[in-house]
Amino acid sequence: MRILIVGAGGVGDAIAKIAATRSFYEAVVVSDYDVSRAERTVAWIAERHGAEVASRFATTRIDASDPDAVAAVARANRITHVMNAVEPKFVPSVFAGAIAAEADYLDMAMSLSEPHPTDPFSTTGVKLGDDQFAQAGDWESQGRLALVGMGVEPGLSDVFARYAVDHLFSSVDELGVRDGANLVVRDDEGNEIFAPSFSIWTTLEECLNPPVIWERDSGWTTTAPFSEPEVFDFPEGIGPVECVNVEHEEVLLMPRWLDAKRVTFKYGLGAEFIGVLRTLRDLGLASTVPIRVRSAGGPVEVAPRDVVAAALPDPATLGPRMEGKTCAGTYVTGTGKDGEPRAVYLYHVSDNAETMRDYESQCVVWQTALNPVIALELLARGEWSGTGVLGPEAFDAKPYLDLMAAPVAEGGYGQPWGLSER
Amino acid sequence: MRILIVGAGGVGDAIAKIAATRSFYEAVVVSDYDVSRAERTVAWIAERHGAEVASRFATTRIDASDPDAVAAVARANRITHVMNAVEPKFVPSVFAGAIAAEADYLDMAMSLSEPHPTDPFSTTGVKLGDDQFAQAGDWESQGRLALVGMGVEPGLSDVFARYAVDHLFSSVDELGVRDGANLVVRDDEGNEIFAPSFSIWTTLEECLNPPVIWERDSGWTTTAPFSEPEVFDFPEGIGPVECVNVEHEEVLLMPRWLDAKRVTFKYGLGAEFIGVLRTLRDLGLASTVPIRVRSAGGPVEVAPRDVVAAALPDPATLGPRMEGKTCAGTYVTGTGKDGEPRAVYLYHVSDNAETMRDYESQCVVWQTALNPVIALELLARGEWSGTGVLGPEAFDAKPYLDLMAAPVAEGGYGQPWGLSER
Repeated sequence: MRILIVGAGGVGDAIAKIAATRSFYEAVVVSDYDVSRAERTVAWIAERHGAEVASRFATTRIDASDPDAVAAVARANRITHVMNAVEPKFVPSVFAGAIAAEADYLDMAMSLSEPHPTDPFSTTGVKLGDDQFAQAGDWESQGRLALVGMGVEPGLSDVFARYAVDHLFSSVDELGVRDGANLVVRDDEGNEIFAPSFSIWTTLEECLNPPVIWERDSGWTTTAPFSEPEVFDFPEGIGPVECVNVEHEEVLLMPRWLDAKRVTFKYGLGAEFIGVLRTLRDLGLASTVPIRVRSAGGPVEVAPRDVVAAALPDPATLGPRMEGKTCAGTYVTGTGKDGEPRAVYLYHVSDNAETMRDYESQCVVWQTALNPVIALELLARGEWSGTGVLGPEAFDAKPYLDLMAAPVAEGGYGQPWGLSER
Repeated sequence: MRILIVGAGGVGDAIAKIAATRSFYEAVVVSDYDVSRAERTVAWIAERHGAEVASRFATTRIDASDPDAVAAVARANRITHVMNAVEPKFVPSVFAGAIAAEADYLDMAMSLSEPHPTDPFSTTGVKLGDDQFAQAGDWESQGRLALVGMGVEPGLSDVFARYAVDHLFSSVDELGVRDGANLVVRDDEGNEIFAPSFSIWTTLEECLNPPVIWERDSGWTTTAPFSEPEVFDFPEGIGPVECVNVEHEEVLLMPRWLDAKRVTFKYGLGAEFIGVLRTLRDLGLASTVPIRVRSAGGPVEVAPRDVVAAALPDPATLGPRMEGKTCAGTYVTGTGKDGEPRAVYLYHVSDNAETMRDYESQCVVWQTALNPVIALELLARGEWSGTGVLGPEAFDAKPYLDLMAAPVAEGGYGQPWGLSER
């Protein structure tokens, strides 16, 4: 297996650092539009793990917006698996570049949605991943695999759903992904500051798009942003957090392979952050349409959302000033194997203190990066295999969760997951 | 009297339109960096009041940032009074241009403050108007008048304070300016939208600077933004609104001429708007320091606050979609002329429906513009006179309030003011 990581931002950097602790591949090429970012990642690996480990890593510049450029880099490096770790807006070009280079493909977010033009808050328009699933026939006919949505959410959350369906339930009422955290970021004086732990650009995209819900009787429908607020009690000391419906890939993926009455995604944004996102929306600052703004050099055209992203600290740099844990998981309700009603929350918690100590990577970014590495290892071993455009729930969950949880000394990733009966 | 209005934005436009109903001057020159804005104002006057009234108005281009340009326009038009109606950042250049042209000067906001470099939230740095008062000797020695802070707040609020001190109280505990409104703005579908009725740029400047308070024992001190919240009950159906300390000129003006134990300014922002301003501050979006942002044409440098202003609707355009009233006034507590404790709120209310009907000007903008016209008329009549740098409270309040309140048929402005005993 020869892996091309496209994008050496926070997640791409962490994927490389986690991969550096494993030996299932022949080579990893870390690429970025700004090659110095890729070089920084590999320099860290060399310093932490030594020259021999680093010798399996190379760096190169890439333009992720250009399918031909992606394909050229993949061919030049005899890449077998293209690991997409750039912003979701580049999914179409990286996806096309991979198949053109006859490589398999993984991503952690799917092609973007477009709201329904006249009825956005009850009817879907272009759905997340529609563009990719429309090309599934090409991938099948060429015998290639595109494993889409293989981060933590989507990704691990889908693996949990598959595990619950196979091993814990005889019938499922709801597969409900629930994500929450108790992270705080402090300034140099120790005061708590506002600093989202994940890309504000992507967060706005997710949270302001009409949330999508799947139900057996009505299929995919949408609701208003921030709908159906609920307080979900997260484990391991995180505690209760206000969660709301958010557009997310799991709702598009799970119903394609798993049987349930209802599939939802609720994000534990917390009341304060929901207020910030609403304010940005109401002020027109979430918009991606450029507006004319005065500047010292004369009027310029900028998208307000790009300005918001530029004004906030880069989430990848927050690790040293952050404390707390983040929890990703799937809440499943239905009838257990014994015929009795059952409700369980399957989850994985990432602690910023640990990910900073071991990887100099903040915990939300690191938790996202962990999962595609595990998936790549299962693909390399042949324990997972397939062709076409597939979600994580299309594969057996047991070897995945076993490999993730097994101690490092026994060849695993040393990342236990939890099951909380509710 | 020959008046030069510098700036034909919302307030400059309304000053010209209000002046068009009066006859105390010989000529008004409306000027702007973009002369088409000045032309639009005078075209409206011609259409509404006819060619004879409009013949007393002229237009010209001006660069308010250049004192020499301001002076040249003033000299070329034999201007006796320069009426500054541009952003406060141009106060120094318009102020300097006026005296250079041997003209008197009026403004509605004073030269800007700078926070104390090390102790901003308890000690003043450069105060509002400091730059102007430092030049008072020049204005006195040349026999010229600079009437500063002569809008509604500062302006009418200072006139109310002077009236209370002269006519209602034997000793004053607090002169507390209180500003509140019940304005709502609706979109084309009739839904309420977020759209500040006054320049967001100036609002952020006012509300995020350390608020200043004056007390007889300690002089001028500062506090933290949004400090000392109180719910003030505004008259004429506006009702209770949450008010907080805000940096404002009245606190710098009143103690120079009026005797009180304490002088404050509280702005009825309301809880929602306070939340918006806090969010903009916390996200770095209130900053005037340019940041690097991506754009289609490559990276550009823009100030986040300029982007916020550009993303929101121009307040001057909101009139047709706005409804409600705005109230400006001064709450005075102390001992009445009879020796008994007394508390009164002196106020003026502006109704958007009326200002739109008569002036096509939204009510906050129009209320600001009304007051310098009244002051100019009193100066033209000789009922107000003085030299040096003076605030509105340096002049007798009675003729001002009488002229304002008198019916139009009797030569007044038909704008009654209220006195509410508390």
